[in-house]
Amino acid sequence: MSQTRVVIIGGGFGGLTAARALRHSHVTLIDRANHHLFQPLLYQVATAALSPGDIAWPLRTVFRTQPNVHVMMDDVVAIDRSRRVVHLQQSHPVGFDVLIVAPGSRHAYFGHEEWESCAPGMKTMTDAVRLREKMLMAFEEAERHRTTHGSSPRLSFVIVGGGPTGVELAGALAEIGRKAMKPDYPHLHTESLSIILVEAGPRILPGFDSTLSAKAAGALTHMGVTVKLNSLVTDVTPDGVQIGAEWMPSKHTIWAAGNRASPLLNTLTAPQDSAGRVRVQPDLTIPDEPWIFVIGDAAHCPGRDGSVLPGVAPVAMQQGRYVAGLINHHLIPAKRLPFVYSDRGMLATIGRAHAVAQFGPIHASGFLAWALWCVVHIFFLIGMRNRVRVMSEWVWYYLTFKPGARVLY
Amino acid sequence: MSQTRVVIIGGGFGGLTAARALRHSHVTLIDRANHHLFQPLLYQVATAALSPGDIAWPLRTVFRTQPNVHVMMDDVVAIDRSRRVVHLQQSHPVGFDVLIVAPGSRHAYFGHEEWESCAPGMKTMTDAVRLREKMLMAFEEAERHRTTHGSSPRLSFVIVGGGPTGVELAGALAEIGRKAMKPDYPHLHTESLSIILVEAGPRILPGFDSTLSAKAAGALTHMGVTVKLNSLVTDVTPDGVQIGAEWMPSKHTIWAAGNRASPLLNTLTAPQDSAGRVRVQPDLTIPDEPWIFVIGDAAHCPGRDGSVLPGVAPVAMQQGRYVAGLINHHLIPAKRLPFVYSDRGMLATIGRAHAVAQFGPIHASGFLAWALWCVVHIFFLIGMRNRVRVMSEWVWYYLTFKPGARVLY
Repeated sequence: MSQTRVVIIGGGFGGLTAARALRHSHVTLIDRANHHLFQPLLYQVATAALSPGDIAWPLRTVFRTQPNVHVMMDDVVAIDRSRRVVHLQQSHPVGFDVLIVAPGSRHAYFGHEEWESCAPGMKTMTDAVRLREKMLMAFEEAERHRTTHGSSPRLSFVIVGGGPTGVELAGALAEIGRKAMKPDYPHLHTESLSIILVEAGPRILPGFDSTLSAKAAGALTHMGVTVKLNSLVTDVTPDGVQIGAEWMPSKHTIWAAGNRASPLLNTLTAPQDSAGRVRVQPDLTIPDEPWIFVIGDAAHCPGRDGSVLPGVAPVAMQQGRYVAGLINHHLIPAKRLPFVYSDRGMLATIGRAHAVAQFGPIHASGFLAWALWCVVHIFFLIGMRNRVRVMSEWVWYYLTFKPGARVLY
Repeated sequence: MSQTRVVIIGGGFGGLTAARALRHSHVTLIDRANHHLFQPLLYQVATAALSPGDIAWPLRTVFRTQPNVHVMMDDVVAIDRSRRVVHLQQSHPVGFDVLIVAPGSRHAYFGHEEWESCAPGMKTMTDAVRLREKMLMAFEEAERHRTTHGSSPRLSFVIVGGGPTGVELAGALAEIGRKAMKPDYPHLHTESLSIILVEAGPRILPGFDSTLSAKAAGALTHMGVTVKLNSLVTDVTPDGVQIGAEWMPSKHTIWAAGNRASPLLNTLTAPQDSAGRVRVQPDLTIPDEPWIFVIGDAAHCPGRDGSVLPGVAPVAMQQGRYVAGLINHHLIPAKRLPFVYSDRGMLATIGRAHAVAQFGPIHASGFLAWALWCVVHIFFLIGMRNRVRVMSEWVWYYLTFKPGARVLY
């Protein structure tokens, strides 16, 4: 009996976890990048606190010890359900018996895709490195302006979107601006640095309890971030952002609002929601296809209380593990239990040593929450051999404001 | 009495050392990059053994504790001797009482500048990162080819130039290809990987004793590198390299031959040699200008035996320190002793733990020479606080074949 051919699209949290749990199948993991990206820390690359190589691992290296997993670096352009193949950009089509679709998502610009050039998002390593370059160059230009004209110009960063990504970016930017960069630019007045977080709704971190949202907003304000609530962005230009009647000048706008599922999903011809996510069955398959799964933030998957599961790492990882279990045990649909997400809580960091965390009824904030976040995030992901090393590296970088991350090239 | 205004062009070994030794002047250090680059290890970034942030330090961070040094990130386009100003690309001109010109050099293509696009060199961080990308993509393409066509294509890298840079690159490439990459590409046959080092003269490392040159060539051959001597490159195209009558197909050619001094030096209107280097006086000044110095590989400076001092880090550093001494003590030309280079020997690494070293009559090779190289290179350069950290990091990376350096973005 030949091995089951499993094709996994995407080497993110969902795809990686599934591949690592599949030991008896012939697995082909396809990703357009050559690495797995630890996305929760991407904002730290963008704010030059960590280097790219600190939060990404080459996929081939991750699967060195798993000879059943074959990694391909390529773009998947279409999925052909009837012929059971995926079509790639550069290589020949790859056939599958089982397909796991985990391509992740991009940012949504709510119909205004033209805003993307003035307000880039932060989903991939390339995004983060470009933002880092923008940020460092902004400081250099301000310093040059001061040298030439004798005064500090106003340096404004606007972040659109008050979810965890926006909050973490705002906090990190404020901290880098005031603490790590200030010694390097002693003549720039930190008063001339302004960071504005713009949220359309009535509170930031809407997925959290309102007390924690308030705590997070307080912490950000204390760090010098201006938090604007109930503020819907109506236009974005290279010179600033329009928020209703208010014009906010800024040459540095970062987009952290909304998610748009990968257009690849359209080729599945399965029901999708308004954000493009595939409406999956209780066993994470698409209708009429017991061996085609969609997981991660590409999937519209209802949680226990009926609301949609968020597009966060722990959800994708549990889904990956669940699907791998079905495959490993060759469970036909009749024998499958539905996927149930075991809520391990939510965490968002604000700056270097502060976070808000929510585990069911338990709320936590401050340094302890942050320390917990570090441990939880890393624990389930990479091999034991690496855990200690990565954690001690991160602690060291945190303490020393790793200067190498600020190198421009 | 107002402070002496010293302008230093270039934050490399020469400029950095001079700036660190100048404690009593008002110093403006200008570099087009925002970092000091530890060039001896650049080939390790190119071969994905180290990350950019491991071998570069933001200049502003280096000078945090020296308030008399002001860093500017800009390009110097011209030097105006008569008006005592340097003209910059983006900022207003900067006036000087004392000028230290240390701009470094680029590669020479011996009149064939059009070869640069097919055979890039490796002088800046940007160069090294691009080479790394080429190398990693070459492996990915070879793997894709094998997957699609079932056979391993021939993967050829040609390095032109048998000096220390070319030798170190060839050795590192061979090692990365066979050791670090092989586990990631288990289906690629290492026999299909060929690395060729092309040298126009009769031996590699011509600056070293001939016994050591032979040892180095032997070590390279043992690692799988093909060393071609007495081979002058007569043409370079995207598909290969012409060596006399022999055509060598290669899509990956790297240039490590020859140095060409920065064109900025032409604006000094001082005597130059055929490589464009400024012919300096015994006190490293240009004729008729007792307070304009040229140091590093931009300077044509005769050594004790009459031959020109090589463009290596220790020479630039000693020159930087010498010039700072003249400035600190306000020594007029009549009171200056000529610059004398104290030869601390030469070192070239071949692969991960092998090197050849020459200190006067003492020759060394193998692991001990390599260990010595690490210590010598780092000891004189950066602050004590960093030395231990950087050295232990490098040792760790060496032992673990740092995978983060192989992340493509």
